[in-house]
Amino acid sequence: MYQNLPQKISLTEVGPRDGFQFETEIIPTNLKVGIISGLADAGLRRIQVTSFVNPGVVPQMADAEELIERLPRRKGVTYTGLVLNTKGVERAHAAGLEHVEISISSSDTHSRKNAGMSLEQAVEQGDAMIRLAQKHDIHITAGIQCAFGCVYQGETPVHRVLDMARNFMHLGVHRLSIADTTGMANPLSVSRLTDALLPETDDIPVGLHLHDTRGLGLANVMAAMSCGITDFDTALAGMGGCPFVTGAAGNIATEDTAYLMKSLGIDTGIDIPRLSECSKRLARFFGKQFPGKLYRLSS
Amino acid sequence: MYQNLPQKISLTEVGPRDGFQFETEIIPTNLKVGIISGLADAGLRRIQVTSFVNPGVVPQMADAEELIERLPRRKGVTYTGLVLNTKGVERAHAAGLEHVEISISSSDTHSRKNAGMSLEQAVEQGDAMIRLAQKHDIHITAGIQCAFGCVYQGETPVHRVLDMARNFMHLGVHRLSIADTTGMANPLSVSRLTDALLPETDDIPVGLHLHDTRGLGLANVMAAMSCGITDFDTALAGMGGCPFVTGAAGNIATEDTAYLMKSLGIDTGIDIPRLSECSKRLARFFGKQFPGKLYRLSS
Repeated sequence: MYQNLPQKISLTEVGPRDGFQFETEIIPTNLKVGIISGLADAGLRRIQVTSFVNPGVVPQMADAEELIERLPRRKGVTYTGLVLNTKGVERAHAAGLEHVEISISSSDTHSRKNAGMSLEQAVEQGDAMIRLAQKHDIHITAGIQCAFGCVYQGETPVHRVLDMARNFMHLGVHRLSIADTTGMANPLSVSRLTDALLPETDDIPVGLHLHDTRGLGLANVMAAMSCGITDFDTALAGMGGCPFVTGAAGNIATEDTAYLMKSLGIDTGIDIPRLSECSKRLARFFGKQFPGKLYRLSS
Repeated sequence: MYQNLPQKISLTEVGPRDGFQFETEIIPTNLKVGIISGLADAGLRRIQVTSFVNPGVVPQMADAEELIERLPRRKGVTYTGLVLNTKGVERAHAAGLEHVEISISSSDTHSRKNAGMSLEQAVEQGDAMIRLAQKHDIHITAGIQCAFGCVYQGETPVHRVLDMARNFMHLGVHRLSIADTTGMANPLSVSRLTDALLPETDDIPVGLHLHDTRGLGLANVMAAMSCGITDFDTALAGMGGCPFVTGAAGNIATEDTAYLMKSLGIDTGIDIPRLSECSKRLARFFGKQFPGKLYRLSS
């Protein structure tokens, strides 16, 4: 089963956005800067640092502009931000970001409940965001949420994800992110979707954004790698969750994923003990442990 | 990577021993009976219910005889107990158990620290336990601890595990259990060891006892299944831990493992929601959550 494994894997750290947004206690901007700098020191080369959303809805992200202003620019490190509408693209541009992520649900019901709009409206809005970002010369990752399933509509048909991916590629996005938003992927569905998708994507990188909601996160990583995926979103300490599944675990943990790669002889460029220090700092701040396993062990 | 997957997998529930022993709060025998009966109701066919150890050292297991006395006998359900010495075998026999598990560390240092004896002494004691169990017509599972590595001595050489397995088979044990006691296995080392071991074991079942200490539990299960392993030890809610690794997660969770199998179309005979009820009952009793992911979700 291991003849197809890659030599190198890229991990995109999404904890400062997808992890922090689930915490109700506001993290001081100072601490965010310290954590994100620590992530860069640990070897993460692509970090999703914030989202440009309504601070009334997500108070944790109210400091988006200030955070980006205060983050030290580092050679080789890309900071990205999540945007939900054209206003978000404008804010990201004004803040000086050169890469944004947009994210559209492949489930109509999930889109209506999560984003307050139909799938069709969300796709239209996505198109507008992409065009605006292109006008500002901003690179775009286009995410497809609930790509493997949705708690409301069940399994997502592969053709729907392919259609959305084709549309994004046609519009000229720079990277695709296939998201298992509610943790419903399994090794078979991961293989099925990536086997169908990768032959169409040519040189556009395809990342997998996996959640460990049902504990299958790293089993799914193994399946994805065997099919040629070399790009994963992860969150330090396995932070995050799912607003539609109470008590759910979050993203796959950066430390655990990096350790899996190390055990397989695959290069990630990540210094795991250094990364774990960031997670332990957050665990101390919140006074609680997160679902990630490895960060708790390293001394 | 999935052409070799089995149609059916057996899970041995070890939570009532390997999970409960890590909890300092004593679980009333009544509740243990309720949980173990619930596990049988959920489809578990082999349950390690206790260990026959010094109650001064492990107070949680002080009710071993009373528990077995009160457990309802059920057709098709095997209760097993862990024994550490010949006295334990005698106690298990007197209590009416028909299957015991012995467990010897493959690491000399770990054996000295955990069992207070050298590897050589432990093997001798194992032989004595096996002969005594045979005299009493008790079936024996022989476990090999730290089969993939040990926090003191690092990686365990495959030949040492093979030598111990050969000795156990020569003595006539009925099942082998290969234990990743400190969670140091990875998909490559799992493949390496099982590929070396399985051709020698003929019709003796080989179970894998995996811990999720570093988060690789289910990735290791995938690797093991691809190599022909169809028998895993699991603990409800992922209870358990490792006395040598502070803050470590425990056994792979029965619910999460059963869900992985279900997602792959592999039969385990387990009713996951029913099983989750047992875990939730324990979570309520202890007032805390365990590392398992799936049991928290099902309503």
